[in-house]
Amino acid sequence: MNQIKIFCPATVANLSCGFDVLGLCLEGIGDEMIIRKSEQKGLRITKITGADLPLETKKNVAGVAGMALLHHLDLAFGFDLEIHKKIKAGSGIGSSSASAAGIVVGINEILGNPLSRKELIPFAMEGEFLASGSYHADNVAPAILGGFTLVRGYNPLEVIKINSPKELFVTILHPQIEVKTSASRKVLPKEISLKSAISQWGNLGGFISGLYTEDYSLLGRCLHDEVAEPERKKFIPNFDEVKTVALENGALGCGISGSGPSIFALCKGVKIAEKVANNIRKVYSETGIEFTVFISKVSDSGVIKI
Amino acid sequence: MNQIKIFCPATVANLSCGFDVLGLCLEGIGDEMIIRKSEQKGLRITKITGADLPLETKKNVAGVAGMALLHHLDLAFGFDLEIHKKIKAGSGIGSSSASAAGIVVGINEILGNPLSRKELIPFAMEGEFLASGSYHADNVAPAILGGFTLVRGYNPLEVIKINSPKELFVTILHPQIEVKTSASRKVLPKEISLKSAISQWGNLGGFISGLYTEDYSLLGRCLHDEVAEPERKKFIPNFDEVKTVALENGALGCGISGSGPSIFALCKGVKIAEKVANNIRKVYSETGIEFTVFISKVSDSGVIKI
Repeated sequence: MNQIKIFCPATVANLSCGFDVLGLCLEGIGDEMIIRKSEQKGLRITKITGADLPLETKKNVAGVAGMALLHHLDLAFGFDLEIHKKIKAGSGIGSSSASAAGIVVGINEILGNPLSRKELIPFAMEGEFLASGSYHADNVAPAILGGFTLVRGYNPLEVIKINSPKELFVTILHPQIEVKTSASRKVLPKEISLKSAISQWGNLGGFISGLYTEDYSLLGRCLHDEVAEPERKKFIPNFDEVKTVALENGALGCGISGSGPSIFALCKGVKIAEKVANNIRKVYSETGIEFTVFISKVSDSGVIKI
Repeated sequence: MNQIKIFCPATVANLSCGFDVLGLCLEGIGDEMIIRKSEQKGLRITKITGADLPLETKKNVAGVAGMALLHHLDLAFGFDLEIHKKIKAGSGIGSSSASAAGIVVGINEILGNPLSRKELIPFAMEGEFLASGSYHADNVAPAILGGFTLVRGYNPLEVIKINSPKELFVTILHPQIEVKTSASRKVLPKEISLKSAISQWGNLGGFISGLYTEDYSLLGRCLHDEVAEPERKKFIPNFDEVKTVALENGALGCGISGSGPSIFALCKGVKIAEKVANNIRKVYSETGIEFTVFISKVSDSGVIKI
């Protein structure tokens, strides 16, 4: 294979009770990339559409992730890359991760998959480091593996993939406001009460169980976040109203995607997801804030060839 | 049915990363009870062997749990109860819970099971309240349901049962020392760092996943407790040596059972469990402290008719 066109999915991280460990992969929204084998070593970004991002490899998330992988593989040839961004930066649904995940999966595919998907995660994390200043797998893990991913720990990195119950849909509201990552980090408590922590890990345990047993109602009962949401929701206008409307219209649960500003609602079936989307639109139309709402299944595939 | 003889299993609660939420049911050790239907309303304890416990119903854990159930059922008859204790009080493997769980399951069985096992848990918790001054399901849930149990939350009570991977064995060391519950509670931190909490819930999520996928090695990697063990181990002489020996001899993980003093080691297969038991015995023989060591499978049945 000399060339590949891939879809690089958006993702939801910090999934309520799974703050900092649990994410999911969307299939309805994502970037596209075209990667071409080149006789010239290294990685060159030849074109970017949809966003004002640096073409210089070492200043670009996909560039850095791709170079980390190439450095590891030590190839006699290289690649040219076109990036077509669809996911807005700063939306809270893993824009940079889609790029970081896409390039490493794409190169690996062209080469006939010398590495497993899990083995690709650390290289994508190099791209995330450029974007956020920290090594984390919250979004690159679901983007690469698909489904739900649990980052069990970082020393060493261990990610567990769990396929999604088939009827799970996600409704996403993206209010087009800027939430500074530094601000949303600053409000996180350094310490939490043992009581809250126990409540959170009881819910996370229950959520993981619900994924394996496809118990939608249990998933809903577990979708609470006692840690980040109470602090971070203040950056998202009308968060409480959106959540109330989502739950009133049948969503299993609702929370902040990543560190915001996007809000996700998990729903059983596309009809409920649409109803939730329609009613969230009504709420947000009254705020005067520009926004987009969309619906997606959870993708069990992660980055895919298109 | 007019009479039943039952086995009331010992249990391990506070299972490392599952502090306050995760427990398991043993099959190798437990009390026995004989429950007889009587024309006289109420519950009378006619005999107790193996422990110096009150015969007065309202001062006895089994008595209080049984009466809570009888009050709910509003029967025209009653029961007589014989208790044969084998689990030592204060051992940390759910002695009081075995009694509380046994009586409610036993009465329910005699009546042809009008309530589900899960519905019985709150009545057993009344007995636990007498024993410990708090309503908790840590031990009564696994004793009643068997397998592994996750107490997702208390408002309302929700317990999830997960069957045990078939090759799981538990080695238990019971050092015969007294650890005051009040002391072991006092050392628990009121607050924990967000970092520790995330690490703990990553491990709990991984452990739950490992139970469903029967991934023994994953179970082992998740068996860490950053919260209670570092504080509570100081009450258990030579805890660190026992843990080291257990892990060196192949245990998947090792931690404090309940609030101690018993120590559990989770092992894949009976041979490893025996090897761990033998080597723990060697360590503890040198302490001058009286102790018992035993091995058990995880029981998926909970309280059973014998």
